[in-house]
Formats: sequence, C-alpha cells, structure tokens
Amino acid sequence: MIYNTQIDKIIELALEEDIGSGDITTLSTIPEDTAAFGRFIAKEDTVICGIEIAMKVFLTVEPTVKFKANFKDGDRVSKGDIIAEVSGNARGMLTAERTALNIMQRLSGVATRTAECVGMVKGTKAKIADTRKTTPGMRALEKYAVRIGGGTNHRYNLADGVLIKDNHIAAAGSITNAVKNARNMIPHTLKIEVEVENFEQLNEAIAAGADIIMLDNMTNEDMKKCVEITAGRALLEASGNMDRRNLREVADTGVDIISIGALTHTVKAADISLKFKLNS
Amino acid sequence: MIYNTQIDKIIELALEEDIGSGDITTLSTIPEDTAAFGRFIAKEDTVICGIEIAMKVFLTVEPTVKFKANFKDGDRVSKGDIIAEVSGNARGMLTAERTALNIMQRLSGVATRTAECVGMVKGTKAKIADTRKTTPGMRALEKYAVRIGGGTNHRYNLADGVLIKDNHIAAAGSITNAVKNARNMIPHTLKIEVEVENFEQLNEAIAAGADIIMLDNMTNEDMKKCVEITAGRALLEASGNMDRRNLREVADTGVDIISIGALTHTVKAADISLKFKLNS
Amino acid sequence: MIYNTQIDKIIELALEEDIGSGDITTLSTIPEDTAAFGRFIAKEDTVICGIEIAMKVFLTVEPTVKFKANFKDGDRVSKGDIIAEVSGNARGMLTAERTALNIMQRLSGVATRTAECVGMVKGTKAKIADTRKTTPGMRALEKYAVRIGGGTNHRYNLADGVLIKDNHIAAAGSITNAVKNARNMIPHTLKIEVEVENFEQLNEAIAAGADIIMLDNMTNEDMKKCVEITAGRALLEASGNMDRRNLREVADTGVDIISIGALTHTVKAADISLKFKLNS
Amino acid sequence: MIYNTQIDKIIELALEEDIGSGDITTLSTIPEDTAAFGRFIAKEDTVICGIEIAMKVFLTVEPTVKFKANFKDGDRVSKGDIIAEVSGNARGMLTAERTALNIMQRLSGVATRTAECVGMVKGTKAKIADTRKTTPGMRALEKYAVRIGGGTNHRYNLADGVLIKDNHIAAAGSITNAVKNARNMIPHTLKIEVEVENFEQLNEAIAAGADIIMLDNMTNEDMKKCVEITAGRALLEASGNMDRRNLREVADTGVDIISIGALTHTVKAADISLKFKLNS
Amino acid sequence: MIYNTQIDKIIELALEEDIGSGDITTLSTIPEDTAAFGRFIAKEDTVICGIEIAMKVFLTVEPTVKFKANFKDGDRVSKGDIIAEVSGNARGMLTAERTALNIMQRLSGVATRTAECVGMVKGTKAKIADTRKTTPGMRALEKYAVRIGGGTNHRYNLADGVLIKDNHIAAAGSITNAVKNARNMIPHTLKIEVEVENFEQLNEAIAAGADIIMLDNMTNEDMKKCVEITAGRALLEASGNMDRRNLREVADTGVDIISIGALTHTVKAADISLKFKLNS
Amino acid sequence: MIYNTQIDKIIELALEEDIGSGDITTLSTIPEDTAAFGRFIAKEDTVICGIEIAMKVFLTVEPTVKFKANFKDGDRVSKGDIIAEVSGNARGMLTAERTALNIMQRLSGVATRTAECVGMVKGTKAKIADTRKTTPGMRALEKYAVRIGGGTNHRYNLADGVLIKDNHIAAAGSITNAVKNARNMIPHTLKIEVEVENFEQLNEAIAAGADIIMLDNMTNEDMKKCVEITAGRALLEASGNMDRRNLREVADTGVDIISIGALTHTVKAADISLKFKLNS
Repeated sequence: MIYNTQIDKIIELALEEDIGSGDITTLSTIPEDTAAFGRFIAKEDTVICGIEIAMKVFLTVEPTVKFKANFKDGDRVSKGDIIAEVSGNARGMLTAERTALNIMQRLSGVATRTAECVGMVKGTKAKIADTRKTTPGMRALEKYAVRIGGGTNHRYNLADGVLIKDNHIAAAGSITNAVKNARNMIPHTLKIEVEVENFEQLNEAIAAGADIIMLDNMTNEDMKKCVEITAGRALLEASGNMDRRNLREVADTGVDIISIGALTHTVKAADISLKFKLNS
Repeated sequence: MIYNTQIDKIIELALEEDIGSGDITTLSTIPEDTAAFGRFIAKEDTVICGIEIAMKVFLTVEPTVKFKANFKDGDRVSKGDIIAEVSGNARGMLTAERTALNIMQRLSGVATRTAECVGMVKGTKAKIADTRKTTPGMRALEKYAVRIGGGTNHRYNLADGVLIKDNHIAAAGSITNAVKNARNMIPHTLKIEVEVENFEQLNEAIAAGADIIMLDNMTNEDMKKCVEITAGRALLEASGNMDRRNLREVADTGVDIISIGALTHTVKAADISLKFKLNS
Repeated sequence: MIYNTQIDKIIELALEEDIGSGDITTLSTIPEDTAAFGRFIAKEDTVICGIEIAMKVFLTVEPTVKFKANFKDGDRVSKGDIIAEVSGNARGMLTAERTALNIMQRLSGVATRTAECVGMVKGTKAKIADTRKTTPGMRALEKYAVRIGGGTNHRYNLADGVLIKDNHIAAAGSITNAVKNARNMIPHTLKIEVEVENFEQLNEAIAAGADIIMLDNMTNEDMKKCVEITAGRALLEASGNMDRRNLREVADTGVDIISIGALTHTVKAADISLKFKLNS
Repeated sequence: MIYNTQIDKIIELALEEDIGSGDITTLSTIPEDTAAFGRFIAKEDTVICGIEIAMKVFLTVEPTVKFKANFKDGDRVSKGDIIAEVSGNARGMLTAERTALNIMQRLSGVATRTAECVGMVKGTKAKIADTRKTTPGMRALEKYAVRIGGGTNHRYNLADGVLIKDNHIAAAGSITNAVKNARNMIPHTLKIEVEVENFEQLNEAIAAGADIIMLDNMTNEDMKKCVEITAGRALLEASGNMDRRNLREVADTGVDIISIGALTHTVKAADISLKFKLNS
Repeated sequence: MIYNTQIDKIIELALEEDIGSGDITTLSTIPEDTAAFGRFIAKEDTVICGIEIAMKVFLTVEPTVKFKANFKDGDRVSKGDIIAEVSGNARGMLTAERTALNIMQRLSGVATRTAECVGMVKGTKAKIADTRKTTPGMRALEKYAVRIGGGTNHRYNLADGVLIKDNHIAAAGSITNAVKNARNMIPHTLKIEVEVENFEQLNEAIAAGADIIMLDNMTNEDMKKCVEITAGRALLEASGNMDRRNLREVADTGVDIISIGALTHTVKAADISLKFKLNS
Repeated sequence: MIYNTQIDKIIELALEEDIGSGDITTLSTIPEDTAAFGRFIAKEDTVICGIEIAMKVFLTVEPTVKFKANFKDGDRVSKGDIIAEVSGNARGMLTAERTALNIMQRLSGVATRTAECVGMVKGTKAKIADTRKTTPGMRALEKYAVRIGGGTNHRYNLADGVLIKDNHIAAAGSITNAVKNARNMIPHTLKIEVEVENFEQLNEAIAAGADIIMLDNMTNEDMKKCVEITAGRALLEASGNMDRRNLREVADTGVDIISIGALTHTVKAADISLKFKLNS
C-alpha cells in the first residue's frame, strides 16, 4: 500500500464520525484487558477489495492488533470464505469494526460490479472505465477498487485530464479552437478528449488532433460508424448511461473504452461479516 | 442550514479531490469573464435532497454565484422539473458542477429509498430507521437524507447510543450485568438497547431495564410474539437484512422501529442533470 | 486508552502553542545526547487523572521515552507520592514537560473536585453530573476526569441529548408540543429532558412523557415535593449554582442527579511537580 | 481584533465539540424562521473580556446575526449590566450560546483575577505577569485576557523566550556557560532569563549578562537583598506560588515582575448569563 | 482566480508562521482605528506575478481592506511602476505586508526568469517547461508563475503523468515492457514519457509507443539526430541542467520541449517594495 | 531532531502535492516487492543541510526504509561525497525521492550561502542574520538552515520580536513614544529594536532605551559613526540590500549584526543527486 494522504484523511474522518468521544457500550461492558479473535467472512461470492485498508483502520484504533489476510485485493472469494483474521484487544477491535466493514463492503461492491462489466466485454478490445461520479471523499478508494476489479481509471480530477464538452466548445467558438487553446496551455503530458454528438463533430475533433473522443449517448450503429470513420486516429470512448446497455454489444462496435458512472455512483455493498470471539 | 463542521469538511475534501490544482479544461477554453446560466433538472421522479448543500458547494468555489431553489429538501419532484437554477461566472460553475451533483444525486437517492420504505409501512406505528452502515465521511449528510425521506435516525455514532450485542454480553457475563454496567457509566440522557436472539434473552433484557430491544433476524411470527411478551415495556426494533423482507408484514408484527442498513450502504444515485447555457 | 481523535487534536494544539518553532533554551544549553530521569510528585493530596495522557504527550515529542506509572487514573495519591517516572532523552522530556503537567494538573483538579462532591452525597441515590460548561477544546478530557472522579456525564454535546428549555417551550407553544416534536425527530436511542420551574410545568412534562426533568434553581423543599409528585415516572435533575448549595441536603430531597457546572468551569489545578535529574 | 489563526482554531474546535452533528433540541422545537433577541447580563461585578470573540462565535454559526456591544474588553461591569445584545435567527443563536458563554466567562474570570492582583501592587513598580501554565489550546486567549486585566505577558512559548533553569545549568556546567551558549544561538532580539535560588547564583547570573533573573520561592527579605545586589543590572522576577503570598509585600521588595501561574491555571469563571426572547 | 485549496493552505500556513500570536509591534504602537494607504512599487523591471494572491493575503488578515491593481499577472512592469494600491486599517495591512510581499516577489522572480527563457527560444517551436523541482508547499503557485511567464507546465505530480526512467526500465526488464505495463494500468487520458540516453533506447521507446521522449543530458548534435530519427512520431523533451546551456541552440535542434528545473529551484526574488502612508 | 509541528506540516504538504493519488509510473512498472539501494551524492562542494529531514520524508512514505547518514547537517561535503544511503522497498523510495531532494537541495543552498557570508566577516564581531523574507511555509526549515550555515536568526515572526519602523514611529508620534508604548505592552523577555535613518534618530532611539538599532541602507562611513555614537549602549544591525555590499567592509564598521534577506529570498539549490540501484 503506497503512501496516500487522501486515504489517511478519509480513514481519520470515518473514525472521527463513528467513534465520537468514545465507544461507550464497549467501555462500560468489556474489561480493559479482554482479548478477542475475529474473522471477516464472505456472506456471498464477491471480488474482495479493501483488506489492507481495513487493516489500517484497525491499526489506527489499536496499534497492537494482529491482522492476517487470507486473500489479497482482487481475489474472488466464495460465500463462507474467511477473508482475514484479527486478534488482540477486544475493546479496540470492537470500536474499529464498523468503520473497517463499511469501507471493505463498499470497495468490494465496486470491485465486484466492475469485474462483472469487465467479464461482459471479455475478448473485445474495450476497456471498462470509471468516471468522476464518485462518492465525495472516497475518490481515491473507489478508483482503486475499479482497478482491482479489472477496470481502468478515467482522469482522477479536473486537473489531470482535459475533457472538452458542449459548453467549452461554445465558449471557444468551435471544437478546433477549443482543442488548440487547451493544447496551448495544458501540460504536454496530457491527452485531450472531446465529447461529440454526431459525425460532423467527430470529423472536426479528429482534424483538430483530439487524442480521445467521447461518443455521448449514441446508438451502437452510430458508434460502429464512428469507429470506421476514426480508423485508429483517436481513442473512442462510449459514454452515457452505459449501465443500462448491453455492454457486449457496445464493445462489439469497436470502441476502445466504455465509461460507466454507475460503477461508483450506484453501489451495492458486498455482504461481509466480522464475527468476534472473546478469549476466556 | 445549521452550522455543522462535518459537512464543511466533506465539502472541502470533495472539492479538493475533484479540482486538484485547477480545472484545466475550463481555464483553457472559457474566457475569464464568461457568464452562464444553469438548471438542475430531474431526469426521473425523486424525493429531492441536498439543494442547500449544492448551493454551498457553488458558493465555496465562486462566492458571487446566484442560486435559486424552486423546491426544498424533501419535496417530490417529477421527471422534467427544474429543481434549482444557478447563474454567474461560467468558470466557477463548471468547476463546481460535478461535486454538487455527486452530493445531490446521492442524497436524493437515500431520501427516495427511505421514502419508499416509509410508504410501505404507512398506517402502522413502525418507524423506518437508518444504521451506522453509512459511507465513510458522509454520515452527517446521509443521516440528514434519511430524515428528509421521512425516516428516523438511529444513534449517530458509538458515543451517543448504547447497543449491547453478543460480545458485550459475553464479556459482562449476562445481559443483566451488561445493562447494569452500562447504566452505571453512561450519561443518564441515553437509552440502553440490547440485541436479543430469543424469548429468554428478551425476558432478561426487559427485566434488566433495557429501553430498546433489537430483534435480530427473527421471523415475523417470533417478532409478533416478542411484541406480546414486551407489552410496551420497551421499544422493539426489527433488524437484519430488512431490505430483503416485506416491510409491511414486518411492521404489522407491531414492532416500533425497523432499521435498514441498505438505506445508506446500497444507494442508487438519483438521476439529476445540470445543463448550462453560456450568455452571449 | 481508547482511540479518540479529539484528544489527539488538543494534544497537538497544546504542543504547537507551547513549543512553537522549538525550545531554544533546551536546544542551546543541553547537549543532544544527554539523558535524564524525571518524577511526577504529588505536592498535595489529590485524585490523580491524566497519567496516560501525560505519557502520550511525552511520546509525541520523543517516541523513545520510557514512562512508568505507579498509579492509575482515579487513585488517590498523597502529598509526596511519586505518581510516575519518565526517563530518556533530556531535550525531548524538558520540551514536553509543561504541556504534560498543564493537562495532568487540570484533569486532577477536576477529578478531585468531583470526588469531593460525590463524597458529600454518598449513601444517597443522587449522582453527581457535569454540564456543557467545559473549557473550549477540553471537553473530551474534562468529561473523562469527571468520570474518573466518580461522577457521571451529562450529554456530551447538543447532538446527543435533548434538553428542552424555556425558549424551546415558547417556540413550540407548550411543553407538550415541544416534547412531541422532539420525539418525532430525534433518534429513538435518546431520552428527552425538560427544564421546569414549577409544579405545573412538572406535571405537564411528566404527562408529555419527558424521561428526565431538570428542576431549575428550586428550594430543597420544592424539590422534595417534585420527587413526591413524580413518583419515579421520570429522572429528576437538580440544577443551578449547585456548587453554592449543601449537596447533602439537595441529595436528601430524593433527586436522581445533581449537575454542577463548576466541576469544569471553575477548576483549581492540582499541585503536581515534575523534577528531572540529568544522567552523568 | 487582529487576525490570529490560533483563536480561529480553538473556536472551531469548541464549536465542533459542542455542536457535533447538530443541535437536535433546537432543530426539533424551534421553527426555522423564528427570530430572537438576547442579552448578555453580568450576574456579578467583573472585568469583562471576550466580547469580540463571543461575537465571532455567533457569526461563525450564523453569519446574519446582529451583535451590539455595550462595553469593550477591559471595562468593569457591575451586576445587572447588559454587556452586549444579539439578535437574529433563533436557531443559530441558541446553538452558539454555550460556546460563546464558555469563552467569555473564562476570559472574564482571568481578566478579573489579574486586575485584582494588579490592584494589590498599584503604586509599586512591579508588574503582574502570567506564565506558561495555561489551559491547553487556550493560550492565545488566556494571555490576551491577562493583558486585558492589566497584566503583562511572560514569554508566549518555548521558542520566544529563554529561561535557564536548574537542569539547563547542570547540563551546561554553570550559569556562565549556559548563558553564553544561549546567547550564541538565540536570536539577538531575545533577552535571557536565569532562575536562581541564592545570592551566589544571582551574582553569577548578573556577571554572565543575564537580562532577567527569576527569584524562585524566596522570602521577601531575600528578594529585597537581591534587589540591592542587582542594583538595576537586570530585571528581577518573583516567582513560585505567588498566589498564596501577600502580593503587596512582594512588590515592596522592589522586584520588577511578579509572575503568577494561578492567573491561568486556577480560574473562577465569571458569572454571566445570556437570556433570549423569541420574537412573535 | 479559480478556487484552489492548495493555494488557501499555503497562504494560511504562511500567515500562521509569520504572525504567530500577533504582531506586537503594530498592536503596541499603532492605534486601532488608524487608516493607511500603501503602494506596491517595482524596484526593478520584472514580469509581475501574484497580484491577486497578495490581495487574498490582505483580505484574509483584514477583510475590509480595499485593493486596487494597476497591472495584471503577466504584465511587464518597469522600475518605478506602481503595481497595486491598498488602503484601509493600518494594523491589518502592516501585519499582512511581509507575507504578501514574500509571495509576490518569489512568483514574480519565477515568472521573470521563465519569460527570459521563453524569449531566448522565440521563433522556434520549442516550449519552455518546468519540472517537479519546486519549493515544498509552493508547487501550485510556482507552476502558475511559470505559465504566467509564458512557459508551459510539465506534469503536476507523480499521479498525473508517467515518466519512465532507468530504474523503472530496469525493474520492468525493458523499455518495451515498461511502456506496456504503464499503458495497461494508467488512465487512458495520460501520455507516456520515457527517458532515453542513446539512439538505441530512442528507437525502442518509439517502437513501444512512447508519446514523449526525454533526451537526458545529450549534446545538441545528438539531439538533432534524435529529432531526425523520431520524425514526429513522439514529442521530444530536452532535459538536464538546461539552465547552463545556450537555450537557443538547444531549441534549434528541433526539440519540442526544454524543461528547466532551475525555473523553480533557483529563484531570484523580484525587487518589489510596499510603502505605506498613515492617514492623519 | 526536536519535535516541531511546523516541519511536520510542510513535509505533509510537500508529499501531498507531489504524490497526489499515487505514483503511477512506479506502481505500474516496479513489482511490489522490489528492493533498492540509493545514494545521495554531492555534485558540487556544499554545506550540507536537511539530512534528518530527508530521512523523515522517506520514513513518512515508507516506514521500513533504512537510512544511513555519512555526514551531519553543517558538514562541508565535496563533489563526489556520498552524503547518505537509503535502502529498502523500491516503490516507496522512488516515490519519496523528489520531495526529499527538493528539501535537502534548498536547505543546503541556504546553509552554503550563509556560510559564505559568515566566512567573509570572519574575525570581526559581526554576526550574519536572516530576516522574515523566507519562502511561505518554509520558515522553520530555512531559519534552521541559516543556523546550520553558521548564521544567527533574527526574530521568528511578528509575535516574538519588536521592530519599530517608520510607520510605527509616525503613528506613535515619535521614537520615544513608540518605544515606551511597546515596552508597556510586550513581554519583558523581548528586546526592542528601532529602525533609524540618521544620527538624530539614532540618538533618540538610544535615549528611549532601544535594545537594538537597525541602520537602514546607510553608507559604511555613516555606520562607523553610528558605532561611535552608540558606544555599546545598544546592538547595531546593518540592513538593506546587504547581499550587494562588501560584507567585510560593512563588518569592519563595527556593527554587531548584518541581516541579509537574500539568504532566504534568493536561493540557489545545491546540486545533490540520488542514484538508486535495484536489487536483483
């Protein structure tokens, strides 16, 4: 797990909001020196994600906890599998439990959904990508979960990618101008993406030197034609409510990327439990 | 909107992760003094939630923006309704757009799901409650959305409520001991809740003076019997994968509260768009 | 010591304000590798509180310090007792000294005062409680000291307890309305407290279902009558300049709780010294 | 009120700990658009301190509040005086009330105590000074209150003043060495203070060029002799449990400064109330 | 000036470190209601940068200050020009002065140096770019100053650009592998840059599909040959102590970008003064 | 290295701005368990500064790294010297590299420049001092580097030193008044410095009891005369574009301190490289 201040911040925020001034149930009923042993158990088949982060949550609350992972992020676990084991001070572990689970369940949900989408387009060249439609505060973690699920990340934020849409085109006067203005100002390490709605715009974007072209809410037929027109001169990205489409058919049009907001904006938490036994 | 440092923190974190060192597309294609006018439009029927917070996001990025709400949080909007209008500097508004939408879509999703559940139990005395299974960093906002949807909040965190579960009982020796120990230490302003699995435990919890009793994963039949046994001596809360149950039937057992983790752990973002027009 | 972000924050703030850009006296006069040994000594009889927090302060400044506690929080120490011993790098320990003492002296002062009050009502059923009249930034620590002194905590903040006062009653129209409105909105895990000034209000509060009733600035005679009227239907809390009253007589009225703002708003720091010896 | 990030931090921390996720009593009983009018009233004679800071607290919670001060920090108010008036949104004001009062009461307590001490030495040249024995997090505010009470501040922290004590002397080998080492390293803008216990040390400190000499726990007689020996070659500071001494007699020895830890470590909160009336 | 949390953070940090607990010279010598008028004056010819940020510094310390800019960032000002004027409360402005100047002088220094380099390559196609060799905490501001000086930004940080160097190549086994691995994992919106040391590596990098190739410390002759070999199939970036080279000759080799660490790691502050007059 | 929250803050800010959401080049090309060994090598003669801080940067990113310093801050290293060695996980070290170097190069630049200035006045009594013209956010580190280079620090900030300039004098009415007002309010541990422009002001400042007098932009001849007039009654500080003067001649006038803004506002980064070898 590489150093990442954003992950540290969201863990701290999550613990702060869940623990407040202290876990009064645990403090009043469990003696200070009680030890416990716990198991993360998969209650359904899932692509697991967030094991190391769960560990970090436990260690933040109680640095002496022992954490043993039986799987690693990205593994497919089956109902009943013991994902990881924790042991140590009972108070600390019970206090950390919910925050660790909340993160692991959500990230596993994202990874599992992503893996399903990736599976649907297997054998085509299309990659499944996320968007900026992430949960506030969770972007670093959710984009990580998409990668773990076999997907690819779209730009992280507004600063590390260019996506020229209708308003930018209107303000700049034309796709040609917008691309030129962007090229002039942005780091040379970034590609330029343009969103188009028809073939005319597609042709202008290609001529302007767009590196990526987003095909917004097009029919599969139209996307197929876009692929032919483009002929490899730019990457093509299918976009717009893709979660409601047959992904295989979209991929078969020949597009390079299918980006799906629902990967992160509409998440079903994976069913994972954590059962403790107190040592006596 | 009352002052809440936790909401301020998540807004700041969300803007920080989405804007990074600056919105380079907007900065390179849209002249500094361009004005724009935008409309939040419902793309489906939804209980709207997060209007004031969206406004706060816009004002944080660009303090001169004008924001006009046509609805207020909790209103049901129909597909096509114009929820709110923003106008002002185009750069600032385009930069704030995604963060504002990410929040409003998620909160409206939570409020809508909650309202559906509340509707299912209408006419019974049962209240629909949330849990601590919220998204890290988003608790203040998600619990607000549950209230807006007509639900009621369970405890906010580990410090402002007591919920005695199996491990606490095991450590304390018995339900009786656990309740006594908790009563001794916690603020007198807090009620004590005990999770029980059978009638014997229910009777012990009532005798120990529990204020609330959580019926964990019981059949409706058993819950009905619990209601009879309790006879108003404690509040009864039905819990455990309630999103997979027929809520009406659960409510008809006579329980006081039905708590549903899925209200916040498995959210479908509401479909809301924001369309801008540049002023010329 | 359970994880608590608020305690971490106040320790960091205290060290930041006391150390600034560095302890220039120590840096200029004490060689880098000098070792020292120090003793916390009670200069008067006191209920000690804050030992683990003092240790945390030392370890924050200098992680290699060894800290040995001879007592634990809540113990009564006598003048001359050696409360704890620290040894390690002299520079780090001299730099941390004042912050550690400032915290321990204040918390011990709170605990000692609380213990005195608890002693005065011994044998009655009355509990001594604190209020929200704490020192800004120190609430988590001061409420902890009250518990260590044998007292009980009132609500932690405005979010985890309901206390309906004159203005709330006026706005809601009546005690009955105020209680109903609160019950409707607040988590079901919280009790409702109402402040009353006379018997009529008391009766209305009981009828409205208040769980706790605050008797504001009443004579002992009136409080006794309130106890009779209430007959166990609600907890009764005596409040209002209780530090100027004979606590025993207040307790003898039969009230359940006596809350005392002065426990935390008017504190006499305990006299504790920390003497170092440099190793040669 | 000059910009001071430390005051901002403690106000934010205080509001965060007092408001948590929201003032549920106020939110559930007071309609959103209710207006109110409040008065800060002195319940005893006091030197008032913290008016502008109280205003800042109110404005942080509710920027539209109107705040009118009838006195300014440092004024002596009499029992019954209306110190300040606030009007505006009832919810915001009730939510901010306790934090504002907690600060103002404590600061007024510090200022009043300081003013008493200053009064005792009136006519002598002795100044009353504070120490670093302040409440964690409150240093900027408490030192401000000391100035408002007519006292003078000792060094703010370990970085902006040199105070050579027994351990520093032992490590450096002698007072002479310690002063020399400090002079060599510290900014030339700072004076050097040395703590001495006897006349021999006093003489060495003067010879070493100490700018200020702290007379630690000396009798008045000895201090008088120190004044004679020093003959103006250094400032002399009386220190050590000065709150238990007759300050007049100490001042009459001719010392320049009397520093008193109790000004900030043992504070009696001033009795100030805030009464609201709702507008109808 | 678009919203940027990183700029806010560095301004807050700068004010915190410069003001500490308050500007005691100003507070003790300048009456509270004194007004003043100040002028930022260029003491040498410079490309000015940081005007809006200086304004933000003033407004942070004293929100009522009036700030009037006579130039805008990027303008060339001559010795004697009045860059901007501030007026308002004297205390606030004197307190903010140094922080505002420290920022403006440094940024103008960066912009001026950049503009000189840009001037040297005028008429060629080469762009002048910065690097990650920025001052800790100042990256957002320094990269802004490079743009203002007519330069272009290289990647902002390790997350928004790929630069494959010798160690990455060694670990991946070959340039080919390294490029393939990166392409597989990174967002499709990012280009891939490879650092090469000879023609063989250059050819491998082109074949592997590198978008940008960094020519590290090559002679002009070799770079010219690289340009020929590449024939437009990738962008070429000249790098390595470029501040010690004749930039014109480097540009004449036909490279696309010349990146210069010294633009930000070795900065000469521009000579700008701020002179105040007190109003009487 | 003593505890210093300001150094922690700037390290965190620097890592946050350089790493963003992760070092994607390293993550995609270097296997997780690759080990590496690195050497900091001096590419030119320099006074080295920042070794421990560089170590702290590495340990923040990757706590398991081994760091071995061959020199200590303040040592003069020659071109080719191996300053320090790091070994451990390759990913973590490559991610931390740039931030560590940016700090060490800058601090060594400051220390080297300071040492040069100190060398020029060797044998005189003049000390070389810094100013508040530091880089925003870097003050604690830059002032440390000045000390390491053999210089002395001027006041750290506006709170820990008094420097009365023209505007303060104008507002107070005279130097005499300004000194008196300051003396009255400031801690007795601080000296008072007055900036003067001519002999008349010098005499007034001495008479008023100024401890330090700043001679602003005077000729050497005039400064010599000031030394004679002052005759040891105050410290004299030469100031004003001193980097453009012959420091030896300035020192020979007999002034006590020469303060040089350019020590920190115009820094040439020392040339230091960090070369890694991957273990195979």
